[in-house]
Amino acid sequence: MTGTPPPGPAPRTVLIVSAHAADFVWRAGGAAALYAARGDAVHVRCLSFGERGESQGLWKQPGMDIGTVKEVRREEAARAAAALGESLDIDFYDAGDYPLVVTEQLQERLVQDMRALQPDVILTHAARDPYNLDHQLTHEFVLRCRMIAQAAGYPSAHPPIGAPQVLLFEPHQPEQCGFVPQLLLDITPVAETKLKAMQIMGAQGHLVDYYTDLARRRGVQYVRNGGDRGAVHAEAYQRVFPVTAKELV
Amino acid sequence: MTGTPPPGPAPRTVLIVSAHAADFVWRAGGAAALYAARGDAVHVRCLSFGERGESQGLWKQPGMDIGTVKEVRREEAARAAAALGESLDIDFYDAGDYPLVVTEQLQERLVQDMRALQPDVILTHAARDPYNLDHQLTHEFVLRCRMIAQAAGYPSAHPPIGAPQVLLFEPHQPEQCGFVPQLLLDITPVAETKLKAMQIMGAQGHLVDYYTDLARRRGVQYVRNGGDRGAVHAEAYQRVFPVTAKELV
Amino acid sequence: MTGTPPPGPAPRTVLIVSAHAADFVWRAGGAAALYAARGDAVHVRCLSFGERGESQGLWKQPGMDIGTVKEVRREEAARAAAALGESLDIDFYDAGDYPLVVTEQLQERLVQDMRALQPDVILTHAARDPYNLDHQLTHEFVLRCRMIAQAAGYPSAHPPIGAPQVLLFEPHQPEQCGFVPQLLLDITPVAETKLKAMQIMGAQGHLVDYYTDLARRRGVQYVRNGGDRGAVHAEAYQRVFPVTAKELV
Amino acid sequence: MTGTPPPGPAPRTVLIVSAHAADFVWRAGGAAALYAARGDAVHVRCLSFGERGESQGLWKQPGMDIGTVKEVRREEAARAAAALGESLDIDFYDAGDYPLVVTEQLQERLVQDMRALQPDVILTHAARDPYNLDHQLTHEFVLRCRMIAQAAGYPSAHPPIGAPQVLLFEPHQPEQCGFVPQLLLDITPVAETKLKAMQIMGAQGHLVDYYTDLARRRGVQYVRNGGDRGAVHAEAYQRVFPVTAKELV
Amino acid sequence: MTGTPPPGPAPRTVLIVSAHAADFVWRAGGAAALYAARGDAVHVRCLSFGERGESQGLWKQPGMDIGTVKEVRREEAARAAAALGESLDIDFYDAGDYPLVVTEQLQERLVQDMRALQPDVILTHAARDPYNLDHQLTHEFVLRCRMIAQAAGYPSAHPPIGAPQVLLFEPHQPEQCGFVPQLLLDITPVAETKLKAMQIMGAQGHLVDYYTDLARRRGVQYVRNGGDRGAVHAEAYQRVFPVTAKELV
Amino acid sequence: MTGTPPPGPAPRTVLIVSAHAADFVWRAGGAAALYAARGDAVHVRCLSFGERGESQGLWKQPGMDIGTVKEVRREEAARAAAALGESLDIDFYDAGDYPLVVTEQLQERLVQDMRALQPDVILTHAARDPYNLDHQLTHEFVLRCRMIAQAAGYPSAHPPIGAPQVLLFEPHQPEQCGFVPQLLLDITPVAETKLKAMQIMGAQGHLVDYYTDLARRRGVQYVRNGGDRGAVHAEAYQRVFPVTAKELV
Repeated sequence: MTGTPPPGPAPRTVLIVSAHAADFVWRAGGAAALYAARGDAVHVRCLSFGERGESQGLWKQPGMDIGTVKEVRREEAARAAAALGESLDIDFYDAGDYPLVVTEQLQERLVQDMRALQPDVILTHAARDPYNLDHQLTHEFVLRCRMIAQAAGYPSAHPPIGAPQVLLFEPHQPEQCGFVPQLLLDITPVAETKLKAMQIMGAQGHLVDYYTDLARRRGVQYVRNGGDRGAVHAEAYQRVFPVTAKELV
Repeated sequence: MTGTPPPGPAPRTVLIVSAHAADFVWRAGGAAALYAARGDAVHVRCLSFGERGESQGLWKQPGMDIGTVKEVRREEAARAAAALGESLDIDFYDAGDYPLVVTEQLQERLVQDMRALQPDVILTHAARDPYNLDHQLTHEFVLRCRMIAQAAGYPSAHPPIGAPQVLLFEPHQPEQCGFVPQLLLDITPVAETKLKAMQIMGAQGHLVDYYTDLARRRGVQYVRNGGDRGAVHAEAYQRVFPVTAKELV
Repeated sequence: MTGTPPPGPAPRTVLIVSAHAADFVWRAGGAAALYAARGDAVHVRCLSFGERGESQGLWKQPGMDIGTVKEVRREEAARAAAALGESLDIDFYDAGDYPLVVTEQLQERLVQDMRALQPDVILTHAARDPYNLDHQLTHEFVLRCRMIAQAAGYPSAHPPIGAPQVLLFEPHQPEQCGFVPQLLLDITPVAETKLKAMQIMGAQGHLVDYYTDLARRRGVQYVRNGGDRGAVHAEAYQRVFPVTAKELV
Repeated sequence: MTGTPPPGPAPRTVLIVSAHAADFVWRAGGAAALYAARGDAVHVRCLSFGERGESQGLWKQPGMDIGTVKEVRREEAARAAAALGESLDIDFYDAGDYPLVVTEQLQERLVQDMRALQPDVILTHAARDPYNLDHQLTHEFVLRCRMIAQAAGYPSAHPPIGAPQVLLFEPHQPEQCGFVPQLLLDITPVAETKLKAMQIMGAQGHLVDYYTDLARRRGVQYVRNGGDRGAVHAEAYQRVFPVTAKELV
Repeated sequence: MTGTPPPGPAPRTVLIVSAHAADFVWRAGGAAALYAARGDAVHVRCLSFGERGESQGLWKQPGMDIGTVKEVRREEAARAAAALGESLDIDFYDAGDYPLVVTEQLQERLVQDMRALQPDVILTHAARDPYNLDHQLTHEFVLRCRMIAQAAGYPSAHPPIGAPQVLLFEPHQPEQCGFVPQLLLDITPVAETKLKAMQIMGAQGHLVDYYTDLARRRGVQYVRNGGDRGAVHAEAYQRVFPVTAKELV
Repeated sequence: MTGTPPPGPAPRTVLIVSAHAADFVWRAGGAAALYAARGDAVHVRCLSFGERGESQGLWKQPGMDIGTVKEVRREEAARAAAALGESLDIDFYDAGDYPLVVTEQLQERLVQDMRALQPDVILTHAARDPYNLDHQLTHEFVLRCRMIAQAAGYPSAHPPIGAPQVLLFEPHQPEQCGFVPQLLLDITPVAETKLKAMQIMGAQGHLVDYYTDLARRRGVQYVRNGGDRGAVHAEAYQRVFPVTAKELV
C-alpha cells in the first residue's frame, strides 16, 4: 500500500457487497484501498465467484470444471483483496452466478453479517443493469437485508443496525443503467495499489485497461468539477439516500 | 446569532442568488446563518423584490404603489439578512418580477459579481417550477452566468472563476418540481435565528408556519437518514454537479 | 350540437390556448364541444394562424400569399369553433408561426385576457415537443402568463386570477413528447360535432382520419380503464398540477 | 366520527392493502374515515403486523416475544380502524414482515378477497421505496393480484373484477420514492378522527406529530392548488392508471 | 404471404418470446412476417397460452374447462404463426398465466433454446406494464436468460450466445408503460398477412380493429419521421441496448 | 484519409451544427471522416469560434485580443475540417460565445442553409448540459430551425426540407446531461484521421487524450454490444426521433 491516508475521523466500518468475486476490485478497489489505508475496517462479501459468467479465460482451458474455477477465483479474489489492504476481510457466500439466486439462507447470512459488523457505510451495485441481472438483484438484495437488519424484532445475537448510507459503484456501461455520478473519489494515492489488485484478477485480464482508462477519465472530471489538480485517477459513486451534514458541501 | 459554528475549514465565500427578495430567507436562511456563524463570507443577490407577485399583503393596503412596495421589501429583506448574520452582504438587482426578465445588463452584473466574489459555492433555485417560472428562469440564468464567468476571454477586471458547486434549495412544492433532496443540512443551531429572519418578512407572514413545519419534517428525515439525534430542524438541498472528495461519505 | 350535456356544476369558464389556428380542433375539440354543450363559457385564443407551417395545402395553390393564407385559416378556424359550439368565443393574436415569437405585447395580451376571463381551467400544449417548438414555447408561455396574472401587483383593470388547473392536450406523437395520459375524456356524445369541425379545417385534411382513429383508440382505453362501455371516442389529457378533491377518484 | 360526508354517488367498495398493520392509519386514515362517513364499504387488509420492523417500542419492553407483539399490534390496528369508522372491516394476513414474503397462499387469499369484495377502488403503497422494500413489494403484489382477479379463467366462487383504479398513498420520504402527488384530498372534516386513530397506534407514537405536520403542509398545498380555503388538512395520492371522466377536471 | 421481402443480408435467426399465446401476433406479427418473407429463421416461444387471462370469449361458453381453452389457444396460435410465415417455428412452454410463474425449469428451457438457436435478435415485452405483470415479468425473464446463455461456464450442449439485441414490442397502452418508439417498422408489404393472422385469434377478436388502427397510426408517423410515402402500416419498437453500426443512421 | 469507406447507399448530405469551433472535432470527428470517406457531402456550421470560453491556451499569451483568438480558432478549425476530409465544407457564423446569443439573423442564416443544403441527417449537441448552456441552446436552436425550414410558407429561394434525423453527439460528462447512447459508431477506420484533426486544435490540446480514451472505451462497448471484434474506437450518439426502417435492426 503506497498511498497517503485521506483525512477525516477514523476508524469506520465499511461493507462491500459484490455480486461476483471480481466486481469489487474493478469498481470499488480504489475506495477499498483508501479506506484500508486510513485504518478503517473493510469487509468484502462476494455473493458468488462469478464462476460461470465471468471466468471465460478459465473455461477455455481444457478439462476445466466448476470446482476448479471456483477455487481459482477464490484465490485470486483473496489475493486481490490483500493487495488492496492487508487488513481487508473477505468472505465468499458461494451462492452461484448466472443467475444469482437469493434464498432465505443467503438473506439470513448477509443480515447477520450486517448485524455483527454494524457498517457505517455499504457499497454495492447500481439499481439497474440490463446487461447483468445478477447486479441489479444484488442491489435489491442489499437494500432488503439492510431493512431487515434494522428491524428491532428480527432475531439475532447482535443489535439492530442504524441507517448506513448505501453507495453504488459504477456499472460497466453507466448510461444504460441510469447511473449518475454524485461523488467523484480521488483514488490517485492508491492508483498503483488498485492496478496491482486488478492485475491479479487474471481471468478477466482484458478489463484492466478498460478500468484504468475509466479511472483517468473520472480523474479529469474530478478536476473539472472543482477538485484539486493533483488528482489523476478517480472512481464514481451514486448515493441511494440523502447525506446528512452539518454544513453544505 | 445563537448557534454554534459548525466544524470545517474556513472561511469560504458563498453566493446566494434569489429570484425574489424573500426566497433566500424561506429556503436557505438556515444555511446562510450557519455559513455566517462560522465566519464565511455570505453574499445574497436578489434579482427582484418580488414586488408584484410576492407582496399580496402590501397590495391590500389602500393607495399602495410599486415604489413603496419595493422599498418595504428592500428594507425587510435587508433586515432579515442582518438577522441571519451581521456580516451578510445583500444587494438588489431590481430587475422586475412576474415576470423576471433577463437582459444583457442583468447578465453582465451577475457575471461581474461572480468574478469579483470568486464564490466557493452558489445557492439558487431548482431547475423546474411550474408554479413559478421566475424560479426556473433564475436557475438557468445562474448556470449561464457561472459558465460565462469561467470563460478566460470574457472581459473583466477580475480573473475567471473556478468550478463552484451549485446547490439548489427546496421549492415550495418539491415533488411537482422534480426536486430530490441529496443533502439534509442540520440547521438546529440556527433555528431561532432563521425564525426571526422569517418573521421580519411580514409581507408573506403566512409562510412562517409552513417553513417551520417543513424544517421539522426535514429534521426528522435527517435523523432517519443516519444523522445525529440532536437535530430537530433541517433544510434540504439538491446538487447540480457531482462532489469531489478524498473519501466516500 | 348533438351530444347530451355531461353532469356537474355549471357554468364554468374555460380558456384554450392554441399555438396555431387548428390545434385546438384536433386536440381539444371534443372537450370544447362538451364544455359548450353544458353551458360553460369557452374561450379559444390562437397565438398564430399556422400560416407558414400548417397550411401546406394552401401554399400549393399558385399565387398564394401570406395574407390570403391567414384569412383562409382565420375563417376556417372560426367556422370550426362555431361548429364545436355556437357560443364559442375565438380570438386570433396573429403573433406569427414557425417560429412563434413571444413578445412583451403578446404576453400583456394573454395576461389581460386571463385577468378579464378568470378561467376555471386552462387547456394548452404539452411541455415538450421536439417536432414542433412552437408547441413547447406555448406551454411555457401559458404557465408564465398564468403566474403573472396571479400577481397582486401586476397592473390591470381586472383582479388577479386564482389557481386554475392547466390541462395538456395530446401531442401528435405523444411518446416522443413525454406525454402520459392522466385523464381520458369520453367525447362520444360530441364525436360527430368534432368530426364536422375537423372537416372544416380543409388545409390539413389528412389529419381528420388520424385524429378519428386516435379518438377510437383512446375510447377503447377509456373502457379498459374502467369507464362505462358506452364510450367509443375519447381524448387524453395530462395535468400540470395536482387536483384538489373532497373525495378520492 | 365528526366529519361531514363528502358529496357524490354512494356507496362504493374500497379496498386498502397495507404492508404493515399501521401503514393504513398514517397514510390513508383520512381517506378511510371520509369513505366510511359517506357510507362506503371500507375493507383493510394488513399483510403483516409490522411485528419485527415497526414495533420498536414494544421490543424495548423486557421479556417481549413475537406472539405478544403481534397481538398488541392486531388489537391496536383493529381499534384504530374502528376509530376511523365503526363500519370498517379489517383483516390480518399475518404473512410476516422484514421481509414480507409473497407466497402462493398469500396471493390466493388476496385474489379471492378482491373477487369477493369487487372493489371500486384500491389504495396501497407506492412503486418504489428504497427505505422499505416491504412497501414496494406490496405495490407489485397488489397489481399482480388485481390482474389475476380480472382473469376470466381464474378459479373462484366469485366473478372477475373490473378495472378498479389503484391509488398510492404517500411514502415517508416521498421524493426518494419518486412519489408525485396527483390528488390532494381534503381531510379536514375527519382530521380529529384520524388523530385519534393515530394516537391508538402507540407502538409508533413518534409518528403522530410527523403525520399531523404533513397533513397541514398538504392542506396548505390544497389551497394553493385551487382548493377551497376551508381546508386545513389533506392527504396526497398518486394514481397508477388514467381516470375516465365525462368532463375535464 | 403476399409481401415483398425487405432488403438486407440473410438469413438471420430471430427469437420472439411471448408471455401469452397471442401477444406475438398483435404486437410483432408484422415483423415476424417480414422476417419470414426474407428467409430468416423465426422462432416463437409462448410462455403460456393466456388460458386464464386472455381467453374471455372461450370462458363464456358453457362447460368450458382449462384443458380445452389451452387446446383451442394452442391451435389458434399455431395457425396464426403459420399464416405469418409457413416456416415459422412455434413452441409452447405451458408455464401458466395470470400469474406467469418463473421456475428453474422454465429458465433452463429458455436458456437452452437460446443456446441451441443462437438468435441474432430477440423480440419481447417492454420493461413495465402496470396492467399486466406477466408482461413485465417476461421482459426481465428474457434479459436474465440471455445473460445466462452468455455465460461460458453454464452447462449446455451448445456454445454460449453472443450479444443479440433485444427489441421490445409495443404494449397495449404505451404511455403508461414508459414505452418510447425508437424504430418504426414498415409492415405495409405484410399488412394483409398480419390481418389474417390476427383474425385467426378468435378468442380476442375485438383486438383486430384496435391493432389495425394502431398500425395505421404508426404508419402515418413512419412517413412523418422521414420514411417513404408508400408506407401505410407500421409497428413500433424500442431497443434495450445501443446498436452498433458502421455508419450513422 | 486512411480509412475504408463504410458500405451503404451514397451520397448523402450531412449537416453538423457545432456551438463552438472545436466541438465537431472532439465529438463527431469520426463520423465526419467516415461520411467524407464514402463520398457524402459534409457541411459543418460553427455558431461561434469558442473564442471566449474554449481558448484558454491562447488567452494565456501576452497581448492577446479577441480578433486574434477568433482568427487562430478559425484557421485551426478549418485545418481540422480539411484533415477529416478534403471535401468538408465548413462555415463560421461568428455569433459569439459564453454566451451564445440566438438572434433573428442567426436563425435566418441556419434556416436558409438547411433549405439550400437539404440535409439527410443533422448532427448537433445534446438537449441538456448544465456545464455549458451554449450547448443546450444550440440543441434547441437546431430543432427550431429544422421546424422552420420544414414550413411550406417560410420565404426562401429553396424548397422546404423533409424530416431529417437529428443525431446528438456525446457531451463531455454524459451522465450529467442525461445522454444515453443509442448508437455506437465504429470509427476505427478513421481513428488516425480523427487524431490528426484533434491535434490541430492546439488551443485545447489537453482534450486529445481525453477523447482518445473515450473512443477506446466506446470501442470496447461496441464489441460488448455485439459489434464485430475488429472495432477499437467508437463514437456514441443519441437520436431525437425514431428511425424508420424496412427491417428490424
